[in-house]
Amino acid sequence: MKLSDQKQQFKNYLKEIDYYREALSLIHWDMRTKIPTKGVEQRSEVAGFLGEKIHQLQTSKQMEAYIKELKPNTDDSILLRTIEVCEEEYERNKKIPHKLYKDFMITQTKSEAIWQQAKENDDFHLFRPYLKKLVDFNREFASYWGYENNIYDALLHKFEPGITVNELDHVFPKLRSSLRSTLEKVQTSAVKPDPSIIQVHFPKQQQVAFTEQLLKQMGYDFTSGRLDETVHPFAIPLNQNDVRLTTRYDENDFRMAVFGTIHEGGHGLYEQNIDPRLARTPLATGASMGIHESQSLFWENFIARSYPFWEKNYDLFLQYAPHSFQNVDLEQFYQTINEVKPSFIRIEADELTYPLHIMIRYELEKALINEEIIVDDLPHLWNEKMNDYLGITPPTDREGVLQDIHWAGGDFGYFPSYALGYMYAAQIYHTLSKDFPVESLIRTGDLTPIKSWLAKSIHQYGKLKEPLEILTDVTNETLNPDYLVQHLEKKFKAIYQF
Amino acid sequence: MKLSDQKQQFKNYLKEIDYYREALSLIHWDMRTKIPTKGVEQRSEVAGFLGEKIHQLQTSKQMEAYIKELKPNTDDSILLRTIEVCEEEYERNKKIPHKLYKDFMITQTKSEAIWQQAKENDDFHLFRPYLKKLVDFNREFASYWGYENNIYDALLHKFEPGITVNELDHVFPKLRSSLRSTLEKVQTSAVKPDPSIIQVHFPKQQQVAFTEQLLKQMGYDFTSGRLDETVHPFAIPLNQNDVRLTTRYDENDFRMAVFGTIHEGGHGLYEQNIDPRLARTPLATGASMGIHESQSLFWENFIARSYPFWEKNYDLFLQYAPHSFQNVDLEQFYQTINEVKPSFIRIEADELTYPLHIMIRYELEKALINEEIIVDDLPHLWNEKMNDYLGITPPTDREGVLQDIHWAGGDFGYFPSYALGYMYAAQIYHTLSKDFPVESLIRTGDLTPIKSWLAKSIHQYGKLKEPLEILTDVTNETLNPDYLVQHLEKKFKAIYQF
Repeated sequence: MKLSDQKQQFKNYLKEIDYYREALSLIHWDMRTKIPTKGVEQRSEVAGFLGEKIHQLQTSKQMEAYIKELKPNTDDSILLRTIEVCEEEYERNKKIPHKLYKDFMITQTKSEAIWQQAKENDDFHLFRPYLKKLVDFNREFASYWGYENNIYDALLHKFEPGITVNELDHVFPKLRSSLRSTLEKVQTSAVKPDPSIIQVHFPKQQQVAFTEQLLKQMGYDFTSGRLDETVHPFAIPLNQNDVRLTTRYDENDFRMAVFGTIHEGGHGLYEQNIDPRLARTPLATGASMGIHESQSLFWENFIARSYPFWEKNYDLFLQYAPHSFQNVDLEQFYQTINEVKPSFIRIEADELTYPLHIMIRYELEKALINEEIIVDDLPHLWNEKMNDYLGITPPTDREGVLQDIHWAGGDFGYFPSYALGYMYAAQIYHTLSKDFPVESLIRTGDLTPIKSWLAKSIHQYGKLKEPLEILTDVTNETLNPDYLVQHLEKKFKAIYQF
Repeated sequence: MKLSDQKQQFKNYLKEIDYYREALSLIHWDMRTKIPTKGVEQRSEVAGFLGEKIHQLQTSKQMEAYIKELKPNTDDSILLRTIEVCEEEYERNKKIPHKLYKDFMITQTKSEAIWQQAKENDDFHLFRPYLKKLVDFNREFASYWGYENNIYDALLHKFEPGITVNELDHVFPKLRSSLRSTLEKVQTSAVKPDPSIIQVHFPKQQQVAFTEQLLKQMGYDFTSGRLDETVHPFAIPLNQNDVRLTTRYDENDFRMAVFGTIHEGGHGLYEQNIDPRLARTPLATGASMGIHESQSLFWENFIARSYPFWEKNYDLFLQYAPHSFQNVDLEQFYQTINEVKPSFIRIEADELTYPLHIMIRYELEKALINEEIIVDDLPHLWNEKMNDYLGITPPTDREGVLQDIHWAGGDFGYFPSYALGYMYAAQIYHTLSKDFPVESLIRTGDLTPIKSWLAKSIHQYGKLKEPLEILTDVTNETLNPDYLVQHLEKKFKAIYQF
């Protein structure tokens, strides 16, 4: 066969995978936003079937042949990178014996259900045997995948290629000591924001209308997406012109929806602005979990929680907000939405203490995978670390070790991405500030240059670049936690006047 | 291979087809209710891909082998009927040369777009060449499929097996003459309902809340379905526990949503109550277009447009309706929702004149397929028949021959199902009335016995029985237009006092 024909065939083969992916993504979106309860069981079969089809195509002899024959004969950079990404997926799957993978899938499905139950009943013992198995599976996988220095690196690689234990053990302690020192100053400050002044009834429909305004301001395109309600918010690209956001509403605390929606909007903007030439290839998505999170946190923390953002938007906010907000002035409002207060639940944590939650998980899962601790010790160690880093002890495991679904889903090595994304975001924001008068743009509400800069510097590439390649190309240096440290210190110094 | 193994393999094969069908149905639902505009293009590719997969599996050599080997060796009635339905689909597809079918698909896709344009611009000439081709395709298909007496029978068979031109030419004239005589009496009556008294602003959210109440009363299960907004309402089964309804709202005329939703609710109840043993087979859907329509029209016309229904529900209605309804009494309300008035648009027609719209289409398409008239004559003949049957002449083709999408979609032989469904519904209602005091049940709002009776007599069987087999089993006679004739005469005699 002619090489050009074979390349075309390969592209068609990838299209087919992507058709299944798009159909499956729609099912996932629907299952988390619209599906009636009794419809779930049969729909899950369909999801399983489509997932299996994708897996088969990604790991087929045909795929192996395409990789082998096209890789040495391709100089088109998009096609070459596409082949590399396919190869990585192929290798990762091929290295795992089929039986092991199947056992893992069964355990994982059961574990999620058991975890749900264990969390509801605050019963770690119920979940413990499953968690043990999942740790063992991950250790086995890591051995098959291989690593250089630390077994945990093999797991990290899946979510954040280029990042290692070595790197994390270098940046996290720096970040931690700074966060804890800032936290101490916050806690001894005389400034005590009173959240009760903004915890007033704010009707859902009004929250929807206001957050839609903010998404439009960010440049999120509603003709290529939509916003729906769900229990655990997420953003999902069905195709590049259909990137959907979800959020949840607390009628007694608008912060959940406002900042949550902007966060998902950051993910959405990323997917909406990937180069259309990457469509129907595995490159048409974010570079990594961490880079994706950098985009959501950029908009949530660096734009939407900033003072200039509310200088611009507080009047608009008041148009949608209940009458009682008329007595809250902009300064009070800004203080309150940035209140720092150690809390048990990661996803409810403030901007300053959030990375500490991540570090606790990182340290525990790294130790588990390295067999330095055992699953039985987790609740106890969790509480110890919470007390050590945040100065509070969860009264129950439900508010402690059982709170997150990740481990139950078999995902180890995922958590660090959240903190990495945060550091990336700070570093990116710092670079942007050198090119643009960012604060004054935010103050005038003209966010288009910011959106365009992100699209040009990051979004358009999709998975065409490695995560650290993007970071370095944009910021001219590799991962540096100092920007986040400085940002948080400066911000909370101003608010808490220390 | 052992026969039992082969049967199991066949069932798995059908499951696979049904997984694709379910995924595709979700895409269809989403495309008509939720999808952002720019997402359509790429999603259409996915829909085309899944549709092609289904077609391949339905017409494969493998399917041929299953039919050939299992049909003579099966005594399980469900499996046997499943094989028959697969065989019919297989044969229908196999008889058409691949090239012809492909050309048809291309023409059909183009035609729908052109029809849309022609309708918008009121330009029949634009659509004419496409319509000619579609008539020719249908004549060719009919020749391949075969027929006994009339070529149009081959097309009818696709939608309503068992029904022939012979049958329709027997029942339609009877029905027509009665409808026209009743219509004349209505038009000369001194009773003149004034629709303006109910055409008042009725906020959408209130209409949603009220119609949901009515659906619950019917027994539609919201844990196995949902209700959304769309432009052209439909009901769609994704699986038996996820049967979705759609509707549209006119804030100045609640009748559109109320009766439209109940209509779709009738379709929905059917699909929700099919025997779960038929799941993942081609039997897990309605017996035919006509039987399906009998269920929607049963609830819309025989239940929801009846006097007892509003004796029960008018107080509830007033709780949701705008204040101005307080001056409309139940008698006036009942008269107005049943106003008879010849109109141009089929889907807006009243209960009495609706079948006349269907007959016009039937007569024209039968004559086209039989080459007794040509496409060029259509606008002229349409208007003539409208004048003849309804006494009005459409001022434009947009309100005449161009109004419906069916022909543009290549569907000939479909329209009669609407009138057949109406006659079935009347006949079924008559039988039900012998078993139950239907009117007093409706008056008390206890619709459960009615719903259960329909589920037991009709719904549970899905496609296990032929449409006329269901009709005969339930009513103890074959198609009889008298019940519809009597129902309409009696109803409008009471309202219009003739």
